[in-house]
Amino acid sequence: MSLHRVWRLGADIDTDAMAPGAYMKLGIEGIAPHCLESLRPEFAREVRAGDVIAAGGGFGIGSSREQAPAALKHLGVAAVIAPSYSGLFFRNAFNVGLLLLTCPQAESLREGESVGLDLDRLQVVRADGQRLACEPVPDFLLAMVRAGGLFKLLQQRFASTPSQVSPEHS
Amino acid sequence: MSLHRVWRLGADIDTDAMAPGAYMKLGIEGIAPHCLESLRPEFAREVRAGDVIAAGGGFGIGSSREQAPAALKHLGVAAVIAPSYSGLFFRNAFNVGLLLLTCPQAESLREGESVGLDLDRLQVVRADGQRLACEPVPDFLLAMVRAGGLFKLLQQRFASTPSQVSPEHS
Repeated sequence: MSLHRVWRLGADIDTDAMAPGAYMKLGIEGIAPHCLESLRPEFAREVRAGDVIAAGGGFGIGSSREQAPAALKHLGVAAVIAPSYSGLFFRNAFNVGLLLLTCPQAESLREGESVGLDLDRLQVVRADGQRLACEPVPDFLLAMVRAGGLFKLLQQRFASTPSQVSPEHS
Repeated sequence: MSLHRVWRLGADIDTDAMAPGAYMKLGIEGIAPHCLESLRPEFAREVRAGDVIAAGGGFGIGSSREQAPAALKHLGVAAVIAPSYSGLFFRNAFNVGLLLLTCPQAESLREGESVGLDLDRLQVVRADGQRLACEPVPDFLLAMVRAGGLFKLLQQRFASTPSQVSPEHS
């Protein structure tokens, strides 16, 4: 199980913090360098591929802009771990291939600690062996994450067995 | 603006209450008559097309079964009004064409009162004229509700202009 460094944020992180309005015209390459800069100015510069975000509830409230989860994904964030999400953010995040783990104990995680993600059992594993349970993630959403998002998943399926594309896969 | 009768439920209504596990093999025709029976035994019998549910936060927690919002839709529920939803339920509900309004003041609504739904302004309108603001719903989700769900929306679009089907519509 690979290890993931934790960035610890607070509750009610809104989409404007992830994809600031001032840069929305620039495309994801221009937005991502400003991701979370109002809360953690060093984030976009120092985040490494595979890092995870642990946060409080209501993650992703605010406008429905798909660039918010896309910016995290673009920067290499492997997952967000939080007790609850905005419904729209939850939808958009999996669509762009960003894994969200709904974890009641997410706020016990600390800045800078390393955790493993056990996706078979849906648990966050701490260095001391403690395991934090997460709510189940349906297979079709995990498939979307593995494929890199809904669009890529549909491309794969259209390329192989078109008849398998049905609403349950989106 | 048509009026909608309110069924008032509490917080953290889970999907098992909407689509009880014991009936899951029966298909939606067999599940819907048992929708919410553990909380409101009269619900499935007395709910009328166009009624709405007002509830507390965390609506739709629990398993990701798509039959939960589908049962409400099947019974004619026009919308759910709640301060927050499970991310999975939010995704599934719009996929089956069920409108969810995210309304911080949802819990001020009372059992049996009649409300209007102003979908242009995203407000719940009470008989005394009070308006409860709801969070914005993106156009592509409203289109899904109007079409009767994602599958029907995709059918419509494939039938007319296939090239317009893109990830943002799901």
